[in-house]
Amino acid sequence: MAYRKKNEMLDSVLLNDEIINKFSAIVGKENLFMDKDHLTEYGHDRTEDLVFLPDVVLKPGSTQEVSEILKVCNQHKIPITPRGAGTGLAGGALPVKKGVILSMERFNKILNIDELNLQATVEPGVITEVFQNTVREKGLFYPPDPASKGSCFLGGNLANNSGGPKAVKYGVTRDYVLNMEVVLPTGEIIWTGANVMKNSTGYNLTQLMCGSEGTLGVITKIVFKLRGYPQKNVLLLIPFTTNEEACKAIAAIFIEGITPSGVEFFEREAGTKTIEYCEKVLNSPVTTQLPENMGAYLLCELDGNDEDVLMKDAERIMAVVEKYDIGETLFADSALQKEELWKVRKNISPAVNWKTVTKSDDVVVPRSQLPKLITGIKEIGKQYNFSTVCFGHLGDGNLHVNFLRDGMSDHDWENKVPEGIGEVFKLVVSLGGTLSGEHGIGITKRPYMAIAMDEVNLNLMRGIKKVFDPNGILNPGKIF
Amino acid sequence: MAYRKKNEMLDSVLLNDEIINKFSAIVGKENLFMDKDHLTEYGHDRTEDLVFLPDVVLKPGSTQEVSEILKVCNQHKIPITPRGAGTGLAGGALPVKKGVILSMERFNKILNIDELNLQATVEPGVITEVFQNTVREKGLFYPPDPASKGSCFLGGNLANNSGGPKAVKYGVTRDYVLNMEVVLPTGEIIWTGANVMKNSTGYNLTQLMCGSEGTLGVITKIVFKLRGYPQKNVLLLIPFTTNEEACKAIAAIFIEGITPSGVEFFEREAGTKTIEYCEKVLNSPVTTQLPENMGAYLLCELDGNDEDVLMKDAERIMAVVEKYDIGETLFADSALQKEELWKVRKNISPAVNWKTVTKSDDVVVPRSQLPKLITGIKEIGKQYNFSTVCFGHLGDGNLHVNFLRDGMSDHDWENKVPEGIGEVFKLVVSLGGTLSGEHGIGITKRPYMAIAMDEVNLNLMRGIKKVFDPNGILNPGKIF
Repeated sequence: MAYRKKNEMLDSVLLNDEIINKFSAIVGKENLFMDKDHLTEYGHDRTEDLVFLPDVVLKPGSTQEVSEILKVCNQHKIPITPRGAGTGLAGGALPVKKGVILSMERFNKILNIDELNLQATVEPGVITEVFQNTVREKGLFYPPDPASKGSCFLGGNLANNSGGPKAVKYGVTRDYVLNMEVVLPTGEIIWTGANVMKNSTGYNLTQLMCGSEGTLGVITKIVFKLRGYPQKNVLLLIPFTTNEEACKAIAAIFIEGITPSGVEFFEREAGTKTIEYCEKVLNSPVTTQLPENMGAYLLCELDGNDEDVLMKDAERIMAVVEKYDIGETLFADSALQKEELWKVRKNISPAVNWKTVTKSDDVVVPRSQLPKLITGIKEIGKQYNFSTVCFGHLGDGNLHVNFLRDGMSDHDWENKVPEGIGEVFKLVVSLGGTLSGEHGIGITKRPYMAIAMDEVNLNLMRGIKKVFDPNGILNPGKIF
Repeated sequence: MAYRKKNEMLDSVLLNDEIINKFSAIVGKENLFMDKDHLTEYGHDRTEDLVFLPDVVLKPGSTQEVSEILKVCNQHKIPITPRGAGTGLAGGALPVKKGVILSMERFNKILNIDELNLQATVEPGVITEVFQNTVREKGLFYPPDPASKGSCFLGGNLANNSGGPKAVKYGVTRDYVLNMEVVLPTGEIIWTGANVMKNSTGYNLTQLMCGSEGTLGVITKIVFKLRGYPQKNVLLLIPFTTNEEACKAIAAIFIEGITPSGVEFFEREAGTKTIEYCEKVLNSPVTTQLPENMGAYLLCELDGNDEDVLMKDAERIMAVVEKYDIGETLFADSALQKEELWKVRKNISPAVNWKTVTKSDDVVVPRSQLPKLITGIKEIGKQYNFSTVCFGHLGDGNLHVNFLRDGMSDHDWENKVPEGIGEVFKLVVSLGGTLSGEHGIGITKRPYMAIAMDEVNLNLMRGIKKVFDPNGILNPGKIF
């Protein structure tokens, strides 16, 4: 697979002294880096063990600086890759064509919280959790919460249209973006929309930008809408004998008309020992809380402002899941216990990656197809001889699949597993699903795009890209 | 203003016998119309009294037929304007360049209701209320409910990204569209996305299509997501002494952390006699229910599944609004009374149009700016000598403004009022708002687009249009 071969895709780009001097004049020499350590640091993200070194790392401090940098790049046709916190899992921020890494880390200010209109204006380098905590102090709620929220940036969430556990009730990042300031590859600065709750004024550039993985423009300001913070929540841990039973139960909960604020799933296959790895990573005996000899767990959260209503809904959920093959349900009754349970769920991916290099996918299907999907993935694994750990946001049909390298040979890892992943994607599409629910396509899923959509769609996307970026300088080599 | 002069914009299009025969062979001669009555019927919608006659009206019955028609139009560069139920208020479905009207009225089937995944697949010619009632029979809920829901089509809702009263809690049409089958102007057929709750797989063509007013493609199938139907609701009618007091109270309700399922507003200015017209149109003494000598009314609905919670929230709302200058609040305690109150609100526009020709706008601002907006509109009215009736979805800052013609001269109606409307739009934009919240731009707001966005944005939109429609045949003369 093309994306596996590091450096193979690289064009030779000449960043001569004149251009470097221009960049230095724009951002100041203290914000321009060409040393090996920086190039390496900014040459990888959390995607497998991939590294693509850029020629230079720039850390602009204002929209105007971003605009001037892009003008230089556009004039000289220099590839430029915007980068948030580098927590991506699809290689979307890797500079595969070398050139400039544009790190947005200095854009780290919350500019305004408008309590009257339940809106906030932020810079893209604000850490998601910092933003959540800041608005929460005012009784406000920003729901999207990717597992990496403690380190990822809001700009990166927007570029990938991130979701997280609460998406099942509250929607994904795109549901909270009202407007953005964006610098186009030409250096022109636009606002994509207006700071309003409804907008039917021309084509929806805001939603087009959201999820475009930094290929259409560089986001420099974001206006989010907010909600009131729900005061109460309850958390249930429901153990199931098998993955399939857990998946069936999920569809049943929703048919009952209940919308939990989280329906998370993780498996405990003997072969992969997910939970045991988690324990090692967390350095805490969390597994003692999880009933043993079970195949999978559902973490089901309800939130709202009325405790009685939440308890009634929790009882309704119990009545539903009792029809399936479950173990003893754990009702988390302290903030600490809730936190411990969430920790397990959120550390599954880090735990598996602690054990071995993985390839990570985040396929999405209609909820009712989940049992077929998980069964199918395990069958494909047997056929291609790899192990997988499945977990994720099953309430909205979004399953994370980590493919484990363990002791696999380079040949198998770089050829056989990608072939198997192709089979998984074909299965996903045959079930009415698609390649990515929240991580984006980046470089790792790029070779598989033809499985999900035909050439007409891809050509429309290429055409749109050309409208925004006629010289193809911005984050080249991604998506299609 | 250019859009006022009927026929002035028309290019001469030659639809010779050969082309007409091709169309006839595609749709059957029983679905091709060139008689005066049909051309007139399909030459207007609900926008003022504008009429633009097409050359021919076609009523295709399948996606394949739509594709073949578009291929012919694209080959011969014939303008073609898709049309739903013709309930638009911005002239979006008017054939300003003549050519073909493509009526989607035969696409009237609900193809599938997937209760397991809370999704439905429909054709675009299904009437919104028919769809709502059909899914409701299964306990499901499709929230977008434009005032014209008894006659408008889902495809038209999608083209304009329609909202309605419940948008304040449940979002607008775009929040419910997962996927669409679309015929491109070239005749190619695509699905824009996948039937999934989260999607980060390439550019978001679904959201780009939604709100594009039929200028990028013809929608032939739509996959919507659905919710569980909320079992209970309460409705309050709160009279205010002035518009401004009502607007201030709205912002306060939301700051309190309450999200009603509707916050509708209508004024009862002595000069415009809105309610009295309503009574005449409805032929029912509804006004007896409305406390007299008040300036404006708020209709505030709460919904959910727990009556106690709703009653508590209603009490919290009362505690908030009592701080403002209000009359006696009416608590609707029967289904009939609720229906009567909603009837008044939903018939304001028809009532005003019964009295006189109007120009209709649906500006949107951040909620807290509503008092300034309404005061400003009335001042501009005095300056330009026109009356307005203001009403709409104040919970999300979306105000409908009907400009009344009454006895005005042609000159004033066609010159002075449009100038005043321009002043209203400038005010809206200065308050952080934009031109349209849910009706679209069509032809009537097209001359004002430069007030809301600059040339760079408009050029991006023109570029996108060219990617989808290289020959500019589809719904030409709209938006920009």
